[in-house]
Amino acid sequence: MKRPQHGGNLNWAATIAGCPVSALMDFSASINPLGMPQSAIAAIIKNTSNLQAYPDPSYSQLRSHLARHHQIDPAFILPGNGSAELLTWAGRELAQQNFTYLITPAFSDYTRALNTFEAQIIDCPLNLIVPSLPVPQSPHPNSGLLLNNPHNPTGKLWTREAILPYLDEFDLVVIDEAFMDFLTPSQEQSLIPMVEQYPNLVILRSLTKFYSMAGLRIGYAIAHPDRLQRWYGWRDPWSVNVLAEAATIAAIQDEEFQQRTWNWLESARSRLYDQLRAIPGLKPLKGATNYLLVKTETSATQLQEKLLTQHQIVIRDCMSFPELGDRYFRIAVRLPAENDRLIQAISAVLSSD
Amino acid sequence: MKRPQHGGNLNWAATIAGCPVSALMDFSASINPLGMPQSAIAAIIKNTSNLQAYPDPSYSQLRSHLARHHQIDPAFILPGNGSAELLTWAGRELAQQNFTYLITPAFSDYTRALNTFEAQIIDCPLNLIVPSLPVPQSPHPNSGLLLNNPHNPTGKLWTREAILPYLDEFDLVVIDEAFMDFLTPSQEQSLIPMVEQYPNLVILRSLTKFYSMAGLRIGYAIAHPDRLQRWYGWRDPWSVNVLAEAATIAAIQDEEFQQRTWNWLESARSRLYDQLRAIPGLKPLKGATNYLLVKTETSATQLQEKLLTQHQIVIRDCMSFPELGDRYFRIAVRLPAENDRLIQAISAVLSSD
Repeated sequence: MKRPQHGGNLNWAATIAGCPVSALMDFSASINPLGMPQSAIAAIIKNTSNLQAYPDPSYSQLRSHLARHHQIDPAFILPGNGSAELLTWAGRELAQQNFTYLITPAFSDYTRALNTFEAQIIDCPLNLIVPSLPVPQSPHPNSGLLLNNPHNPTGKLWTREAILPYLDEFDLVVIDEAFMDFLTPSQEQSLIPMVEQYPNLVILRSLTKFYSMAGLRIGYAIAHPDRLQRWYGWRDPWSVNVLAEAATIAAIQDEEFQQRTWNWLESARSRLYDQLRAIPGLKPLKGATNYLLVKTETSATQLQEKLLTQHQIVIRDCMSFPELGDRYFRIAVRLPAENDRLIQAISAVLSSD
Repeated sequence: MKRPQHGGNLNWAATIAGCPVSALMDFSASINPLGMPQSAIAAIIKNTSNLQAYPDPSYSQLRSHLARHHQIDPAFILPGNGSAELLTWAGRELAQQNFTYLITPAFSDYTRALNTFEAQIIDCPLNLIVPSLPVPQSPHPNSGLLLNNPHNPTGKLWTREAILPYLDEFDLVVIDEAFMDFLTPSQEQSLIPMVEQYPNLVILRSLTKFYSMAGLRIGYAIAHPDRLQRWYGWRDPWSVNVLAEAATIAAIQDEEFQQRTWNWLESARSRLYDQLRAIPGLKPLKGATNYLLVKTETSATQLQEKLLTQHQIVIRDCMSFPELGDRYFRIAVRLPAENDRLIQAISAVLSSD
């Protein structure tokens, strides 16, 4: 069975662990451990009676709710079957540039989307110590830039001010903000307020992580209406299913859930960070969102395998990020008791080596 | 508000009718009026607790159920977010041919997918009287063929034997069998049994119509594994949502629902056909599946508008099929009492002209 390219492949993990998927504790996918908002589950169940008809191809109701949530014009929003679907069309437009500058290590689906349309990629390796963006101030003409903020898997966050100069230098800038929701309104650094001013800017957002609904498939792009109209003409007309639409409208209005998530994350992450730092041989990086990248003096894949077989715990190795390889692993921040169990298991594995 | 390009756009219809969507009786989308199988709805509700995790990107469970259903190897199956998503990638491969022969009138989403990748289209107009396929026996070299069987909107069915010779003449043959499920095992003419022998053959199937779940988004392609592997690499890894996956596995095993649908359709269609034929000025075509194309001596769009405003009944005009224009409309076969209401409404509108 092939090592997965992405976290959350629990069938693979269950095979190694020799247990059912339901018995695993998953730290490999960076999903909100509070689970899906009850409001979203209720919206799904209510809408099971509405599945006969096609979705509204203009998704006008969904777009108007998302527009209110972000305080922008609905014409600047295009919902998709997860942000990964929209990334495909972003990849097509990036491929029309001469080059795409890509911050590495990068989420493996970025190269999938870029390779689909044979984009010319220029890697921009992130220096894990230097906090600045590793992108040249004067790129080749007709170039695109693809980055995520906060960055995955390091958890680095760039400020709006750090990114802004690149909007004048690149013909197309695509920013994946899949984890931005985890930052409170006072911390977040979304570039959404800039889309009306910069027609070369595309923001991708996902509901997968924050609202814990990876299985439902919903994301959206925020960009100039001309660009979104083009993507809309390329893809099929009913990309978002009716249940994802209903769940999204409920979830983004669930302020109680949002506040509860922010409260949990702030304290759970700093406690987990301290616990990891206290384990000899491990060095966690400071992360802005709901996961931590950890440097290890011993093999990360061996640690992964022992955590699976001895503790049914799944962590994310970094083998699909060639720049990181076997000396790094990524873990999601989960509920405090679960994080404690992870810490105990890691300590047990490392001290028995 | 723009006239929709496809049936089932009920927001548009409700605006014209001046009533809520729920008050409309929809004959415009060719969906099974028995509704979704209860088994599929139960599977969805059961799986609302499984939405946190990503779908299995290999969809191995879903593929093995579909493979058993069609008695083929699972490697020949690729599930998609409705067959429309898979049509996008079929369009990309057709565009790599010099020409794509397209039977017209054609479902509008075919030209969407072909235009996305700038395919060169050669129209093959269907003769509504002559039953043979209007495709040249000797096409240009390096050409593709895109057809649907049964054909939409005419309801024509071509036999396996009528299509087979084209598999030797064309480099790529894509057959959309979205309505084939409505034919009983003794009537159906699917080319699925030929995919192992013809690597240039692609079959697209949909669960939308037969299982009445257009809002859930599920379809699949059946073709050579090398081709499907290529499509799989192009698109995002989690195209089918977890609820659609669960509903599909339940639905295709629901033999009681399948038998009930076949029983209903046989008698309901022939009765509706006879009733339409009895109305002066109308001429229905014989159709193999769950809709009928009707020729009218007066304007179809005027009839459509009056049915909407006076009876809250939606029929499908054929304005998006330029070959048919204002002298044809399409109606879905619904339950006998609903069909009777349609017949009464049409009779009332036409006799008051």
